[in-house]
Amino acid sequence: MPEVADSVGAFMPGPRAVRAGAADGPLAGLTFAVKDLFDVAGVVTTYGNPDWGRSHGAAAATAPAVLALLQAGATLAGKTKTVELAYGLTGENVWYGTPINPAAPDRFPGGSSCGSAAAVSAGLVDVALGSDTGGSVRIPASYCGTFGIRPTWGAVSLAGACGLGPSFDTCGWFARSAAVLEQVGQVLLPSGEATPLGPLVKVKEAWINAEPTTARALAPALAAIERRFGPTLSVDLAPEGLNALYEHFRCAQAEEAWATLGRWVEQAKPEFGPGVKERFAAAKAMDPAKAAAGRAFRRLFAERMRALLAGGTVLIYPTSPTAAPRLDLSLDAQNAVRERTMGVTAIAGLAGLPEITLPLGRVEGAPVGLSLVAGPGRDRALLALATSVAAATGSAG
Amino acid sequence: MPEVADSVGAFMPGPRAVRAGAADGPLAGLTFAVKDLFDVAGVVTTYGNPDWGRSHGAAAATAPAVLALLQAGATLAGKTKTVELAYGLTGENVWYGTPINPAAPDRFPGGSSCGSAAAVSAGLVDVALGSDTGGSVRIPASYCGTFGIRPTWGAVSLAGACGLGPSFDTCGWFARSAAVLEQVGQVLLPSGEATPLGPLVKVKEAWINAEPTTARALAPALAAIERRFGPTLSVDLAPEGLNALYEHFRCAQAEEAWATLGRWVEQAKPEFGPGVKERFAAAKAMDPAKAAAGRAFRRLFAERMRALLAGGTVLIYPTSPTAAPRLDLSLDAQNAVRERTMGVTAIAGLAGLPEITLPLGRVEGAPVGLSLVAGPGRDRALLALATSVAAATGSAG
Repeated sequence: MPEVADSVGAFMPGPRAVRAGAADGPLAGLTFAVKDLFDVAGVVTTYGNPDWGRSHGAAAATAPAVLALLQAGATLAGKTKTVELAYGLTGENVWYGTPINPAAPDRFPGGSSCGSAAAVSAGLVDVALGSDTGGSVRIPASYCGTFGIRPTWGAVSLAGACGLGPSFDTCGWFARSAAVLEQVGQVLLPSGEATPLGPLVKVKEAWINAEPTTARALAPALAAIERRFGPTLSVDLAPEGLNALYEHFRCAQAEEAWATLGRWVEQAKPEFGPGVKERFAAAKAMDPAKAAAGRAFRRLFAERMRALLAGGTVLIYPTSPTAAPRLDLSLDAQNAVRERTMGVTAIAGLAGLPEITLPLGRVEGAPVGLSLVAGPGRDRALLALATSVAAATGSAG
Repeated sequence: MPEVADSVGAFMPGPRAVRAGAADGPLAGLTFAVKDLFDVAGVVTTYGNPDWGRSHGAAAATAPAVLALLQAGATLAGKTKTVELAYGLTGENVWYGTPINPAAPDRFPGGSSCGSAAAVSAGLVDVALGSDTGGSVRIPASYCGTFGIRPTWGAVSLAGACGLGPSFDTCGWFARSAAVLEQVGQVLLPSGEATPLGPLVKVKEAWINAEPTTARALAPALAAIERRFGPTLSVDLAPEGLNALYEHFRCAQAEEAWATLGRWVEQAKPEFGPGVKERFAAAKAMDPAKAAAGRAFRRLFAERMRALLAGGTVLIYPTSPTAAPRLDLSLDAQNAVRERTMGVTAIAGLAGLPEITLPLGRVEGAPVGLSLVAGPGRDRALLALATSVAAATGSAG
């Protein structure tokens, strides 16, 4: 396979980690890339940070999720950039260069799976694996105008992948069409009957939280969806407010981030880019009582969501309240966007729910995604629904 | 708290990692220990192997599962021995000494959570955390005559705990009574209504696989259960045979073990005790096609179990086909016991199901456990059922 030119800086610099897929299989003919936190045997996994790469060295084995795609016939075209230790949402990487957002070059690509989103958006590969703890697949997919799924927590193995918060981390993927997104799901997801889902219900808080321009940009797609699937009602999901969701998510997840990565951070004393350093300092200083409150809230919220979605209800709302922030946005303003965004991504994040984002709107030319969220374990049915929604909105890709 | 004398070599040698629990809480007054693969801030986690301890150093944070018990009022009395890298079922540790099985001192304690089982069995602590990938809580609990639970996969966070096969690993615990086992579950498990379970159904293969002496030893308990809950029918669970279950489990799990630990094994070149070294060599050499077949079978089997157990059915069978092997058993004979045992433990292992073992029989004076297995997510209801079963059999502890 001739090496694809990297027009947007999506791949890791240096020789590409290329592996041929099996001669036949359901994904034969497709190419894919993997976020540089999945191991590929013989290759150094950097986790977005040169010190991580230096202190960990080459992988002994290939992550089972990557192997599954190779065994299904897809060809690995390389490893893609990630935010350092996957701890950030803009997609910035000061060590290897921030990938260009192919759909809006003056804006951030979104992260932490920035290279995977950019590689798919630019057409360099058909599919890319990412990981999503608090939005790291959904947000870059929304910002770069691709389809993206964050599956039910635990549905796809993260063995051989670096962790950030193991009880939150999921293995997700990007594609330019709902059909290809679904094809990959057939390979990676647990078996099981896909009972059709419905009804679709708008999450009031998430629509209110969205910029009016975002909500307006998604209105035609929502209208097309209602023509096809019937009118959507609205629910109040979180009377405590999206800010409370974000706050509980942040505290419980920071506790896990420090439990998972603190030892390495303390011992290797890595250099971090702006933002990442501060987030690990905050994780280290996290008040145990706040983390415990976050854990307790999470259990109740997950139960509330399971009950609400048990009958097949699907939530629908803007994936991100805004289009991608512009590259010259101040760090303070970036943080404000981050908090506002994570109030929404925390819905699926806290409850371990599957979420698919579809590129169904544009704000000032930049993409915004519309999300579908289902109960835990409904991933296959949700992928089938996303394919129908893409067809109904003329966005089959 | 005065330090408990370690009559059975259950704790790690050296200064004990002691932490006082919160002044009040649902577990106030209880003491607990944790397997030495859970991090406690400031303490070196050895994962059962001195080279692991040397190359990883002191933990920066305490694992959230451990913190949750402390915050609920339980006091940490120390860290307990584990089989090296949790990869073994007899409970042997050549570096720190194999714990004595308090219930049968001429026999193995069972592993890999050997120290946790021994500490609870000997009454050194009320509760101990372990981990269970392919039987590492259930088997030592059965061998040492304690209650033990391996929860639904993913139900309890393993952040800050060393992994062996992340898509198989669970955080379980031991207690001397079903009531205390359940109390800990209230703290660690996700919220949710506990719809009562039933009917109880015998797994034919597991009863046939058990030594006749084991089946006979558990017969009075089974009769008492039937008097209380009604007659139990039998099902054929795995027409492909328990050997096939074991084989698929072994291949899929070995792939993950190497993906998770291979890099460290290759780079640190640790010294391993007998058995462990061979298992990592086998994991490294695992045929990718066999591992893929294991993964595929696992998906189908998990779906089959979910369907079978969706209505509340509970499986009942001997936890281990034999009592604990004697300490002088040859390595070949140990391996034969291991394979026969893992054909049974693979049922919950492959399908991610919760399993509780109750100490309800004795063979030549050595304990054997009876297991209750439910559908995923039914942990709280299963704990409630175990408390009823313990009462019905006069084994409330």
